[in-house]
Amino acid sequence: MNKLTGLILLSGSSPSTTNIHYLSGFTAPDPFLFLKTGSGGFLCVSAMEKGRAEKQSTAGTQVFTPGDLGLAGKKAWNHVEQIKALMSRAGVKRLQVPSDFPAGLFQTLEKKGISISVARHPACPERKVKDAAEISKLRKSQQAAVAAMKAGIGLIGSAEIGKNNTLYIGKEKLTSEKVRQLIHKTLIDYDCAGVETIVAGGDQGTDPHERGHGPLFAGQSIILDIFPRSEKTGYWGDITRTVCRGPAAPELKKLYNAVKAAQLAALKMVKPGICADEIHRNCCDIFEKRGFQTLEKEGRHVGFIHGTGHGVGLDIHELPRVGRSGEILEEGNVITIEPGLYYPGLGGVRIEDTVAVTEDGFRFLAACPKKFELL
Amino acid sequence: MNKLTGLILLSGSSPSTTNIHYLSGFTAPDPFLFLKTGSGGFLCVSAMEKGRAEKQSTAGTQVFTPGDLGLAGKKAWNHVEQIKALMSRAGVKRLQVPSDFPAGLFQTLEKKGISISVARHPACPERKVKDAAEISKLRKSQQAAVAAMKAGIGLIGSAEIGKNNTLYIGKEKLTSEKVRQLIHKTLIDYDCAGVETIVAGGDQGTDPHERGHGPLFAGQSIILDIFPRSEKTGYWGDITRTVCRGPAAPELKKLYNAVKAAQLAALKMVKPGICADEIHRNCCDIFEKRGFQTLEKEGRHVGFIHGTGHGVGLDIHELPRVGRSGEILEEGNVITIEPGLYYPGLGGVRIEDTVAVTEDGFRFLAACPKKFELL
Repeated sequence: MNKLTGLILLSGSSPSTTNIHYLSGFTAPDPFLFLKTGSGGFLCVSAMEKGRAEKQSTAGTQVFTPGDLGLAGKKAWNHVEQIKALMSRAGVKRLQVPSDFPAGLFQTLEKKGISISVARHPACPERKVKDAAEISKLRKSQQAAVAAMKAGIGLIGSAEIGKNNTLYIGKEKLTSEKVRQLIHKTLIDYDCAGVETIVAGGDQGTDPHERGHGPLFAGQSIILDIFPRSEKTGYWGDITRTVCRGPAAPELKKLYNAVKAAQLAALKMVKPGICADEIHRNCCDIFEKRGFQTLEKEGRHVGFIHGTGHGVGLDIHELPRVGRSGEILEEGNVITIEPGLYYPGLGGVRIEDTVAVTEDGFRFLAACPKKFELL
Repeated sequence: MNKLTGLILLSGSSPSTTNIHYLSGFTAPDPFLFLKTGSGGFLCVSAMEKGRAEKQSTAGTQVFTPGDLGLAGKKAWNHVEQIKALMSRAGVKRLQVPSDFPAGLFQTLEKKGISISVARHPACPERKVKDAAEISKLRKSQQAAVAAMKAGIGLIGSAEIGKNNTLYIGKEKLTSEKVRQLIHKTLIDYDCAGVETIVAGGDQGTDPHERGHGPLFAGQSIILDIFPRSEKTGYWGDITRTVCRGPAAPELKKLYNAVKAAQLAALKMVKPGICADEIHRNCCDIFEKRGFQTLEKEGRHVGFIHGTGHGVGLDIHELPRVGRSGEILEEGNVITIEPGLYYPGLGGVRIEDTVAVTEDGFRFLAACPKKFELL
């Protein structure tokens, strides 16, 4: 990108919004524009937001309202006019946009004669490598996730086993919803928000995106997947544990032990320079060797049906991926390692930790025990 | 849109994702495609999501995996290939996209020779008018908001007034954070999530997007703005109250009474057929008449610095707006009425209810008292 080219970002669509947060330090509930140039950043926010934007934005970011840019009346709220004014203020002649920039606004800018193109590369590749301040923020979110996990597992472990293996707390049936409520309340104590937390028992746990609902039972595997976002920093945590209240059947134990072995083997491979695909392939190999095949059965994919992990930062899913995209790990990456196995009729198991890639290996962002049977 | 044209939506960016939810009944954490045609809806989701998609999707929506569409290997995960296959399956020759469709994918589709254009009109204008089932969902979220509001106001009202008007609960200072935590925990009991809830006292409350932080004081106006989203239905609630622990100064009471009068007058105007701008203008007039001017003062906009309201549904801000966009209210609209006044040095006041437009007026989604001074 040369001096005459700027990258324009519009908040509101998820990837670009976190890029603006990353680059400018500012977030807001309503859409606003950010122009990144070789010489700094330029925010255009409503007059109402100006004070907060000036307080929160990083050094090198200038804050303008439409009024500051000489726009009045209807022009003040028009994104095209705002972009033209920002370009003029920043001295750029050409625009690049991220691939998720709104097509409608892109076309309008083109029609207005502005030289504009979709950037070929991600807007913030540097986000993959976290500095110490970011890792500290991620660690706090992960600590919140661990505290909530301990609370959730504690509740399941304390449940009485009633008729038909139904779990009870006092006289009430223990449900996925009740465990999730306790998890979310615990996250609030850590100034984090949990949404879409998974507490899924038995066959519900064999669909990795089923959040779980209804009564929980002894003897079934229960997946708890907690991914809180800090309300203060915007950074995420991510952790999964699988537990079973009461003794588990031998086949279910084997399933758990296969996932645990694959996760430990995967963690041991994490270090700078390794291709993340190798870690994923190793998980696949371990499962195959133990007789847990990945295949389509009665129209459903069973076995190891997702990637081994993903980056975590201002987005819950970001680069680098640990799967089949050929990415090489670097020091400062923060990734999850979360192999899993899913067989309807038997159950689902997933074990996930979030780790930072260090100079010579990895470090857990927060420690959390792994224990399957809660006896 | 004729029979040969389909509207293609990609989940992940906020407005389109809720449109997909509205049209298909399905949501998922990872991006997926939805094609709407004259004869129904076509979802393309990963194999992992298929079971859930079939369960959740509305009648008339067909669910496909890339495999079902004959895509294998790398093609299976390519959005362009998925779109081409969906078009072929649905028998459409031309595509329209919403204006927030990603520009990168739009360009790629164009280059592949697909006839594609940005739709001139919103994808789901019918979302503005809610049916009875939607209003019932919105009412539940609003009831959660009211319960959380009562809990938050109860906590502020129960605080002791200490030195320098600092508020205390027992020996601990009462902060915005503590009130917010109680609000969020209450929302969880109603299966709702609250994020970015505002509890802002004194001058913090004069910046409508400041969430509020630190100790709260007697004698200051404290704005509580709670907007929960139901984790079950995806529908939002929205309510704002302003309170003052202990007696308020006469000027602050005047400010409160002006906002309360404007809100009541605005509510009385709500009915089918009225232009929403009239309601907004009436609020402006009431404030002017009472001597509360809207203007720029020392570089900050003060007075009535936002619109009177907005639609609420699967998005917290959706159509119709109650401001300056000329929209005519219809029976079945669900809107907020939330005038406010903001003067640094004096304080901020906002009062907001969410109401359904009925045949001959409006109905509160949930009742909540309005009382300024908590004595």
